[in-house]
Amino acid sequence: MSYNIKEASDGVALEIEKVKKRIQNHSQAKFKEVQTIIDTILKLNGKMLRPQFLIVSANFGTYESERMVNLASAIELLHMATLVHDDIVDDAEIRRNQPSVQSKFGKDMAVYTGDYLLSKSLSVFKAKDYDNEIIAKLAKVIERICESELLQYFNRYHTMTVRNYLRVVSGKTAALFSLSMYLGAIESGCSETLANSLGKIGYEIGIAFQIIDDILDFSKDSATVGKTVQNDVKNGYYTLPVIYAFEGQQIAFGQLTQTDISMKIAEREGIEKSRILAKKYTDKAFQRIDKLPDVPYKALLRNMAEKMLVRVY
Amino acid sequence: MSYNIKEASDGVALEIEKVKKRIQNHSQAKFKEVQTIIDTILKLNGKMLRPQFLIVSANFGTYESERMVNLASAIELLHMATLVHDDIVDDAEIRRNQPSVQSKFGKDMAVYTGDYLLSKSLSVFKAKDYDNEIIAKLAKVIERICESELLQYFNRYHTMTVRNYLRVVSGKTAALFSLSMYLGAIESGCSETLANSLGKIGYEIGIAFQIIDDILDFSKDSATVGKTVQNDVKNGYYTLPVIYAFEGQQIAFGQLTQTDISMKIAEREGIEKSRILAKKYTDKAFQRIDKLPDVPYKALLRNMAEKMLVRVY
Repeated sequence: MSYNIKEASDGVALEIEKVKKRIQNHSQAKFKEVQTIIDTILKLNGKMLRPQFLIVSANFGTYESERMVNLASAIELLHMATLVHDDIVDDAEIRRNQPSVQSKFGKDMAVYTGDYLLSKSLSVFKAKDYDNEIIAKLAKVIERICESELLQYFNRYHTMTVRNYLRVVSGKTAALFSLSMYLGAIESGCSETLANSLGKIGYEIGIAFQIIDDILDFSKDSATVGKTVQNDVKNGYYTLPVIYAFEGQQIAFGQLTQTDISMKIAEREGIEKSRILAKKYTDKAFQRIDKLPDVPYKALLRNMAEKMLVRVY
Repeated sequence: MSYNIKEASDGVALEIEKVKKRIQNHSQAKFKEVQTIIDTILKLNGKMLRPQFLIVSANFGTYESERMVNLASAIELLHMATLVHDDIVDDAEIRRNQPSVQSKFGKDMAVYTGDYLLSKSLSVFKAKDYDNEIIAKLAKVIERICESELLQYFNRYHTMTVRNYLRVVSGKTAALFSLSMYLGAIESGCSETLANSLGKIGYEIGIAFQIIDDILDFSKDSATVGKTVQNDVKNGYYTLPVIYAFEGQQIAFGQLTQTDISMKIAEREGIEKSRILAKKYTDKAFQRIDKLPDVPYKALLRNMAEKMLVRVY
């Protein structure tokens, strides 16, 4: 089995290189200045998790490289667009240890650059034989991302319920992971049942991933990460450990210091409770993975999910 | 002929009501707060020029109400999305004599609301029998709008050439007018030649429309309009009369008062030259309209273009 994982993993890496090239080709802007911004974002672009999961999922059916590279590029361009717009709202100065688009080029630029990337995401489908359903699904995910971000925004400076937190996370993170895996499967000729199952795995992985990200914000050995927490609290955005710490209480957050918040999280076991919730979703995903048909990529999928989700246990 | 115009015009008005209802139905947000913003934008929403031109254009073929109302809604939602994002970049406080989304709800809200409207624009195609080509064309227009806005942004505080001005206007205004008329025609079974011709009419109308808007900003009998000019100049955006006034000169705009600029425009006949350029495009459009097949809606099209474009002659 371990040979299979290595082989499958190399196969995915090869495809990811194609996705990167495809994105670069698709985002050739007409004007030099625009290209500078796009190049900056491409450089900031990280692990391409969504394309990876799409490609792995597609290998449960009949894998067609050209088609999947196109789809994965569309998904990643959409993801990049949301990152650029998120940074505007979060007032983020740093993205993956680099200055964010908005801090480097200004909020105005970031608005249009995000829109531009979104249009590029759609243009991937140009003159290709894709079902309109895909566009409709992409549109639905954009809608969900926006609704979730707006919900989160309206809940600033309020303690959110865990239920509302999950609604936000399911829209802003899990929906796109889910779509990536669903599309990879259905467009590779998997049955609707199998595609739905892979879509659900993507959803559960997405939720767990976001919770773990929230937890990692509280790890003490990183100055950058500490800054993120402070920034979030300052802007009235509370991550899961904070939500658990203040569950059911009306708190004037403005009057609390970072130390007050940390102490409350420790006292109410905010990190521990967050870990338990993440594990719940991770376990669900693993159980579902176990029931998948035995193809070589199944082991890789389990492996990827483990690497991604078992960072904090 | 005048009976025909009245009849055709009533027909368009009826369809526009359907478009308004369709947009309202499509933009039902899941969260109350989001709906408040959407409702505000819907209320601000004006004459629905693009849907009108689409519907008129579609009447050169076999008009199918359901299909055209859908397309027109998608176009208008896209237009609304760009307006919301434009206001962020322009720092606009006022849109159609009402507070803009960003001044009422904040820039952050405006980012997501724009994205949300964009996703709604795409979702119009859900489960409908539309060619992917349409989505690709919509994506291309979004791309052109973004590129033009970025080009304009990068040229802030510089005197733009008239040539670059036309590049900006062709992307940010004319492209969507052109697409509206092209889509209306081609989706109603018009020949490619006829659809292209109607698309070109839309393009020329769009350019003339934008130039006339620039000219009207300088009309002295409106306090609001005066504020727009001041705001544009302050932000480094120069409309066509200003561009003509300072053509070929390197100017430190920061040191010029509004009066300096007005005097220079008068001296170099900036308004007059802008009128001539607008008329050039208006004439092109009228010549092309004259060559169209004789259908009842041809007279209405001429009529609409006249009302829209002969405001300043």
